[in-house]
Amino acid sequence: MRQITDKLSTDTNGPGLYEITAAVVNWCHKQGMQEGLLTLFIQHTSASLTIQENADPDVCHDLQDFFSCIAPQNGPYRHTAEGPDDMPAHIKSALTQTQLSIPLQQGRLALGTWQGIYVFEHRQHLQKRRVVMHLMGD
Amino acid sequence: MRQITDKLSTDTNGPGLYEITAAVVNWCHKQGMQEGLLTLFIQHTSASLTIQENADPDVCHDLQDFFSCIAPQNGPYRHTAEGPDDMPAHIKSALTQTQLSIPLQQGRLALGTWQGIYVFEHRQHLQKRRVVMHLMGD
Amino acid sequence: MRQITDKLSTDTNGPGLYEITAAVVNWCHKQGMQEGLLTLFIQHTSASLTIQENADPDVCHDLQDFFSCIAPQNGPYRHTAEGPDDMPAHIKSALTQTQLSIPLQQGRLALGTWQGIYVFEHRQHLQKRRVVMHLMGD
Repeated sequence: MRQITDKLSTDTNGPGLYEITAAVVNWCHKQGMQEGLLTLFIQHTSASLTIQENADPDVCHDLQDFFSCIAPQNGPYRHTAEGPDDMPAHIKSALTQTQLSIPLQQGRLALGTWQGIYVFEHRQHLQKRRVVMHLMGD
Repeated sequence: MRQITDKLSTDTNGPGLYEITAAVVNWCHKQGMQEGLLTLFIQHTSASLTIQENADPDVCHDLQDFFSCIAPQNGPYRHTAEGPDDMPAHIKSALTQTQLSIPLQQGRLALGTWQGIYVFEHRQHLQKRRVVMHLMGD
Repeated sequence: MRQITDKLSTDTNGPGLYEITAAVVNWCHKQGMQEGLLTLFIQHTSASLTIQENADPDVCHDLQDFFSCIAPQNGPYRHTAEGPDDMPAHIKSALTQTQLSIPLQQGRLALGTWQGIYVFEHRQHLQKRRVVMHLMGD
């Protein structure tokens, strides 16, 4: 059994879901493993990871609206020094994932037919987001 | 170190938490490992995974009510083509887990005394849900 | 490749985020691995795990307020036998993490600059919380 670690960088430009499925799948494929476990870990607390339907783009917009609604920018926050979008971003990160693990079977990630992997950006301005990819297997 | 991957199918019949602890524990036991890491991955975006108390069934009903309340069927969604329960299902999935990993110690999953593993179904109609099980260890 | 499993105990005294980053990092360091995957698993359903900003303590207070607000103690719960704080605790656990995995790279956990690991206590009274730590790698 062996393991490989790498980093994926994603540029984001405002709140929303940015699909990284193709980049992740391609990277896994290049490692030439048949069976294993992939772990994605985002190194931020104001952006997160989620697996969601990648068929109808409206799903992503509705998700974004839902999270903006339950964690609004004008909430009664103490932490405001980094801007009105920062504390809602931490809340949205807490409600979604910082880490995701996906089994690799017969050389393919075990994603369901409609599942896509997304970086969920919660900040308003341009960001460069880093996702650590760790693959362990044979 | 070795690894095994398998699939668990669960039939669901409407929204709610369906316990899969016994099936998962039995499958792990059969693999004959002493130490390792189990990963469960549900291949859907309208059903999810959660670990919750399995003592009082009221906990599961209250959880279901809570999620129905914060992501109601009559929300202002764009994505309605798959029925009024589909977008709330994606939201509830985003708020819970698509994947869970549990250490295996001395031949037993390291679940706490009251912890049960559940498929959290968010759709109204009959579904067949697939959970990939991946066990890695010795 | 090898693996080690251990347990971390944390005493909590009321709702809030209790940072365990130093204890986790020190334990990993002692195992002398260079590359691997750390999995943390909390053996409870009324306390959870989260990775959050550990720079401004107001972030933790705002997070706690947010979760108290969406899962209040006076909600319409069936499950009240264990006190008014128990069912909200299960909800808050469902909304955050029971398990977190973090890659280990070049002998260091791949946490981002501002990321801290927290036990998120949701109960009112003194508790002893157990987190299983599982490290697999070389």
